[in-house]
Amino acid sequence: MWDVVIVGAGLSGLAAANHVLRKDAQLKIIVLEGKDRVGGRTVSLKIPAARGDDVWDLGGQWVGSTQTHVMDLIRELGLEVYPQYTEGKKVHHMGAPESKARTYTGSLPFSSPLVLLDTTLFLWKIEKLCKTVSVEDPISTPNALQYDSMTLHTYMEQHIWTKELQQNMGVCCRTLFGMEPAQLSFLYFLVFATAAGGVLPLLGTESGSAQEFRVKGGTQQLSEKLADQIGRENVLLGSAVTAIEQHSDVVQVRTATQSFPCRAVIVTCPPHLAAKIRYSPALPTERDLLTQCMPVGHLIKFIVTYPTAFWREKGFSGEVVVQNSTGCPFSVTFDATSPGGSPALVGFIAAEQASDWTVRTKDDRRNSVIHSLQKYLGPEASVFIHYEEKDWAREEFSGGCPVNIMAPGMISFYHPSLRKPCGRIFWAGTETATLWCGYMSGAVQSGQRAALQVLRHLAPESLSPSDHEVAGASQSHLTQRKTWATSPAPYRSTTLLAITTVTLGAALLLARPQLSRHLIGRALVFAQEVGFNNKP
Amino acid sequence: MWDVVIVGAGLSGLAAANHVLRKDAQLKIIVLEGKDRVGGRTVSLKIPAARGDDVWDLGGQWVGSTQTHVMDLIRELGLEVYPQYTEGKKVHHMGAPESKARTYTGSLPFSSPLVLLDTTLFLWKIEKLCKTVSVEDPISTPNALQYDSMTLHTYMEQHIWTKELQQNMGVCCRTLFGMEPAQLSFLYFLVFATAAGGVLPLLGTESGSAQEFRVKGGTQQLSEKLADQIGRENVLLGSAVTAIEQHSDVVQVRTATQSFPCRAVIVTCPPHLAAKIRYSPALPTERDLLTQCMPVGHLIKFIVTYPTAFWREKGFSGEVVVQNSTGCPFSVTFDATSPGGSPALVGFIAAEQASDWTVRTKDDRRNSVIHSLQKYLGPEASVFIHYEEKDWAREEFSGGCPVNIMAPGMISFYHPSLRKPCGRIFWAGTETATLWCGYMSGAVQSGQRAALQVLRHLAPESLSPSDHEVAGASQSHLTQRKTWATSPAPYRSTTLLAITTVTLGAALLLARPQLSRHLIGRALVFAQEVGFNNKP
Repeated sequence: MWDVVIVGAGLSGLAAANHVLRKDAQLKIIVLEGKDRVGGRTVSLKIPAARGDDVWDLGGQWVGSTQTHVMDLIRELGLEVYPQYTEGKKVHHMGAPESKARTYTGSLPFSSPLVLLDTTLFLWKIEKLCKTVSVEDPISTPNALQYDSMTLHTYMEQHIWTKELQQNMGVCCRTLFGMEPAQLSFLYFLVFATAAGGVLPLLGTESGSAQEFRVKGGTQQLSEKLADQIGRENVLLGSAVTAIEQHSDVVQVRTATQSFPCRAVIVTCPPHLAAKIRYSPALPTERDLLTQCMPVGHLIKFIVTYPTAFWREKGFSGEVVVQNSTGCPFSVTFDATSPGGSPALVGFIAAEQASDWTVRTKDDRRNSVIHSLQKYLGPEASVFIHYEEKDWAREEFSGGCPVNIMAPGMISFYHPSLRKPCGRIFWAGTETATLWCGYMSGAVQSGQRAALQVLRHLAPESLSPSDHEVAGASQSHLTQRKTWATSPAPYRSTTLLAITTVTLGAALLLARPQLSRHLIGRALVFAQEVGFNNKP
Repeated sequence: MWDVVIVGAGLSGLAAANHVLRKDAQLKIIVLEGKDRVGGRTVSLKIPAARGDDVWDLGGQWVGSTQTHVMDLIRELGLEVYPQYTEGKKVHHMGAPESKARTYTGSLPFSSPLVLLDTTLFLWKIEKLCKTVSVEDPISTPNALQYDSMTLHTYMEQHIWTKELQQNMGVCCRTLFGMEPAQLSFLYFLVFATAAGGVLPLLGTESGSAQEFRVKGGTQQLSEKLADQIGRENVLLGSAVTAIEQHSDVVQVRTATQSFPCRAVIVTCPPHLAAKIRYSPALPTERDLLTQCMPVGHLIKFIVTYPTAFWREKGFSGEVVVQNSTGCPFSVTFDATSPGGSPALVGFIAAEQASDWTVRTKDDRRNSVIHSLQKYLGPEASVFIHYEEKDWAREEFSGGCPVNIMAPGMISFYHPSLRKPCGRIFWAGTETATLWCGYMSGAVQSGQRAALQVLRHLAPESLSPSDHEVAGASQSHLTQRKTWATSPAPYRSTTLLAITTVTLGAALLLARPQLSRHLIGRALVFAQEVGFNNKP
């Protein structure tokens, strides 16, 4: 009999386990993991490089100073961070393959004052909206229904005026989510950005941004060290949970071969994998429907090690941003030189491009990546030491990367069930975070929060008043959903329609009597077909 | 060792099994079903009524003359249909609770010539679009990317001018899909409508429409009779499939307790349930991601039996259509008097309302339904014989009703994997149909098509040339996805933006020099903040 079973030995699950034990070392816990390793969507690999083998991250790799949960953990575990290299020119290639790639310095690229104006206005609008968003309770956001009823693509189409900015935003979306703007709820995008402190911190490498630091020795160490602290005997690999049965006195957590009776469960795996577990009694409908429409993104991440950092020597930062119509497989690359000084580049094949390239061979992808690096950074790119890649969609117990998003309409309907405990099942995982949701920091935050929720249940005396507050907040009352029926009328008023119709009709009648007769005739035939023999 | 294992004993699975055996009676087949009954999303129940107990459908109940696959099956199985009762006034209540409910006859309601015009134009646009849609290969539809990048809600907002039509369409969407317009890809909506022959057949009760006929004795009989034909010993209930393993020589289909070695598998369960099965080797990424974002609708269906058909006596047809802001739990009711003459009404609590009402007690729902029926059809509605209901979201091996839809961006990305066999796994279920997708007829069509695909694999000599054609068509080449990057620019051109900006700027500068200075100042501060120190 265990006190707490934790499903998933990613950063969230291990942070939860560690937090439970830190508060009450007497509790008996076990972490069950489907993979044969800890770390979830972080994995660090030794790769041949200029100064001997060195370690690179094939999963989550960046942290930032405002990501306090993961930064605290890094310090606690005695790890170190170092800044992302950003000096020099960046390469920016939008448009068609034959269009010219440009270089620039600074934060954001633009080719003309018009694009600058468009970018400024658009980001200003988004930042203004982010200030109105409640991450904890997104339904309470003004116009929540309206923003959740459209895709990010639709919002972009309505508010972006230049093709270049539209393409830039497409690349951002692809690399942030592994998804196209057409697949995300716009409200979800706002919530995600707000949880990171705004849209600019998501994109940048400056202080406070998502790409500020890297972790010496790789991010998987966080999970490895946590697993050591928890005790390796309490982390069972190759043990995918298939069923969770809540009885009156006990919860049974089952794998294909074993059963773990316990008092509480923390499920930390991504929503689409949590949906594969069989729950008894069944979960509430809302929870069930939520996880049916939180798909995971698709990223293929690659690392190329080089004998020299030739791009630095040529004045490039290593950042290359490329539109997906250009024939180049990746959306973005960055300098990834190791702290030991082995030069490398890291890049992402994302979303639509991942879909296209996942079905090709590794050789194909490598050749095409190297070819594109040559094109953007120079012929030196052809002489590399090693190419390593990871297609996250191929990893069964992740299914994709970096994060599970929400399709339109899901927040308005089902969001409260994202974090709401179901009996003695508590939910964690970076998707349930309220700070840096979708990032390693969010994974840690959500794991620690779930740990406090469980402790409030099992050992309330072990919690401080502030712990109680954190544990309670996530179960507090959320705003009642507003109904679509009462959402505002379409912006075009019926008066406007009436005036336009009458004016145009009259003009048409006067100008082209024959065409008018033809059109009116067709309209009448159609009206008859659909049976408009209305008698009010 | 079996030749074919069929997952799911709904209409699709049983039609597939029946079709396999009809073509080659020597083949050894077995149908595995998680539920303790056959019929999937159809279930017929004996309910106390005016002329003794009679049978009503708590699941799929209507068929139409253009639904040839199910109509042929009905005839083959010796069953009969009878027309839906539609005579008399219909009740139509839109707007707020205090707004007036109106009555009308004819197909579609409208309160003013403006709404008539709006409705005609909107349906005309949709019908015109449907004529351009390819159901088999939706990516080849003109502007497919554009329509798949928006929700139905967005399209309605852009093309509907009156609040009343917007509300009408909301009710239609709710009852057709058990979903809100905010949750559907607009392209998916077009494909769904086109598979039914257009949007009007979806909504009507006329000849060729989806609500034309009912089946005497209930629709579950179709599955019961098919199960008898197949042999009950070949249909295993309570046997949910948990894993499908494809080895070089054999496919192992596993339930919690048994394993079924076979030569081919047909999976007919809804996509979100197919996603819960563990596949080895893993399914292609496209298939995996597709089923992560095909959520099932939410319907609660109810039947109320009455001593007399008081509504008919009062000149009502029994059809009541109600907007969800009115406090009434249901969206729509119809006359459901049995062929034996026992009066009854049938209705649906759908989508957003189902979400709200699923958490309340059955008594609550019944009282509120009866209260609303009294309001719309008269005080006689309070004296009923029996109230029966089924919340489809509560049925584990359905999870919802009537159909799994597609969220935006899913068709553009993953549609080809909807029907594409994965090794020796073939896909059926009404979601994979190309004619009346989402209906019983689509279930039959998809099951028969999958049967032919399997036979082409196992016993090609048993197939006629036309069978080969059907089996081959679903595996034929589909259009390559167009990329979002090359989709047309936003409709507002940069030229227009430039002219507007310059004009407005000049006007502002002249008219309000102080405000202009303030605005320009803020813009510059923001531009500095986001780091626009661009050096092209």
